[in-house]
Amino acid sequence: MNRQITLAARPTGLPKESDFRLVESAIPIPGPGEVLVRTLYLSVDPYMRGRMNDAKSYAAPVAIGEVMVGGTVGRVEQSNDPNFRAGDIVAGNTGWQDYATPKGKDLRRLDPSLAPVTTALGVLGHIGLTAYFGLIDICHPQAGETVVVSGGAGAVGSAVGQIAKFLGCRVVGIAGTDAKVEYLVSELGLDAAFNYKTTADYGAKVKELCPNGVDVYFDNVGGPITDAVLFNINVHARVSVCGQISQYNAEKPETGPRLLGLLIVYRAKLEGFLITDYAPRFAEGLRQLGAWFGQGKLKHAETIEEGLENAPRAFIGMLLGKNLGKQLVKVSAL
Amino acid sequence: MNRQITLAARPTGLPKESDFRLVESAIPIPGPGEVLVRTLYLSVDPYMRGRMNDAKSYAAPVAIGEVMVGGTVGRVEQSNDPNFRAGDIVAGNTGWQDYATPKGKDLRRLDPSLAPVTTALGVLGHIGLTAYFGLIDICHPQAGETVVVSGGAGAVGSAVGQIAKFLGCRVVGIAGTDAKVEYLVSELGLDAAFNYKTTADYGAKVKELCPNGVDVYFDNVGGPITDAVLFNINVHARVSVCGQISQYNAEKPETGPRLLGLLIVYRAKLEGFLITDYAPRFAEGLRQLGAWFGQGKLKHAETIEEGLENAPRAFIGMLLGKNLGKQLVKVSAL
Repeated sequence: MNRQITLAARPTGLPKESDFRLVESAIPIPGPGEVLVRTLYLSVDPYMRGRMNDAKSYAAPVAIGEVMVGGTVGRVEQSNDPNFRAGDIVAGNTGWQDYATPKGKDLRRLDPSLAPVTTALGVLGHIGLTAYFGLIDICHPQAGETVVVSGGAGAVGSAVGQIAKFLGCRVVGIAGTDAKVEYLVSELGLDAAFNYKTTADYGAKVKELCPNGVDVYFDNVGGPITDAVLFNINVHARVSVCGQISQYNAEKPETGPRLLGLLIVYRAKLEGFLITDYAPRFAEGLRQLGAWFGQGKLKHAETIEEGLENAPRAFIGMLLGKNLGKQLVKVSAL
Repeated sequence: MNRQITLAARPTGLPKESDFRLVESAIPIPGPGEVLVRTLYLSVDPYMRGRMNDAKSYAAPVAIGEVMVGGTVGRVEQSNDPNFRAGDIVAGNTGWQDYATPKGKDLRRLDPSLAPVTTALGVLGHIGLTAYFGLIDICHPQAGETVVVSGGAGAVGSAVGQIAKFLGCRVVGIAGTDAKVEYLVSELGLDAAFNYKTTADYGAKVKELCPNGVDVYFDNVGGPITDAVLFNINVHARVSVCGQISQYNAEKPETGPRLLGLLIVYRAKLEGFLITDYAPRFAEGLRQLGAWFGQGKLKHAETIEEGLENAPRAFIGMLLGKNLGKQLVKVSAL
């Protein structure tokens, strides 16, 4: 049987497990050009919260009753595409289910001898590319500049912090547990980090940890944390707006301080991006990320939930910041 | 005697005439390298409101008792700089007073045969340069794109709208009187404009006048007008943040909708700038502005108050949007 997790109800605020439904159907049969893939790992990511809303955005919402979308690593069981054969390990976008039949052209073959296959859903996939292009292409960080990253111990954030260090920047991470703060400083080599959940005055803390001000800010969270960083920017600061996880469960749009006056005073830039717009440059990004990874410089953490049936719990936990590094769901063994 | 307008008190909210004081002193005597300049015209601009506050910004505040800062056009009365001689007409930054003794190197000689000398305080000075670089360098408008400009009938805004038309864009202006709206469409050739003071739903009006969405927004005003435009942007929109006049008299910082999520969905950029950062490119900008002006394409309007003693009233009126085009004060006849 093919177990699938579908969207049962559009959530209000933080999703509940009952907003999802586990259904079973027959294992699909691949058509011409299609490949039967058995899911090994499923990625759960903040952007999926947006797909659960019936709202206009950059991608269509998941319909009620439809299988949840998501990136996966799987094993080819049967192939009608001459470029793949049974046993190949592939990355694709096959969603929250045991089996799928994507077109071969939508799959990327992985070489398990180069890196653990889960990295295709993390530092050597869209996550790493998001960190790489969002930091380098939007912010152009220079050696000696101060870079702040919020959601610093998440999948994207932990890659951003490391890349900024490779470039010679002073890097300050913001995270939500003391263990994450410790990880950022001791394991990833950031210059400083703080736990916003135990910090009363974010602004004073940013100021303390960034005595020369903030030149580059990579924003994964939005809300009051971002306000505090922005009130500490330097002239010609660059802000890459990658995510706003603090806002995704808001039941009505939040208000906050008006920030545009600050942009004039500091001649600063706020720019949002989606990694899919960088597709023509993915090869360039993956080459650099692969080199850093191969040299042992680019580290990654994973938080792995066992079992497709627990994907909703893993997803909700990720929205609450329970993960360190990339949150994955292990769907089946190789 | 040298009449001077000094800052008498730091304003709360909208400045009052009593926040200024008219004082008299002796006509100053130019020192070595200095030039005695008699003011002909004084420019009053929104940025001066910021200088009246005792707050950290990109420039030091005017001290209580100090002469108000401001751009001027004047006549050289006496010169200790070999590059100038009596009778020369010069542009400088000599403030709200009849006479000043700047260094010659801080003056620019004007050729009254090329353009009315007041244009040095408008379309052929910092105002035109602000429109030119803020629109072209920050937003890169392309022919066929939709450009919206707020404060559209002000000094900067009316230049922005015209330049965007020269570039082949569809241009929509926002202004605060029906006469200004009429001016933008009939005189400057904008495609559409609306009076925000008689419009209940700014967002619906922007949507109606920009059926293809907003690609470029040049913001002079901030606040709810800007919110409305931003909720109508297209993918890869560029926003040039030039001014926030709606906020300058706020007694405490305003709040508004959080906008960063929108930047992600539309992969959009908000960028603030100060024209002084473009000094190395002023010659390029003035060359292009001068060419358009010489061809009769680039039009300008001026609102002229008579008498230095009325500069505070002119300034306050400008903050309230009473001016069409550039607000000037005529200080003395040639």
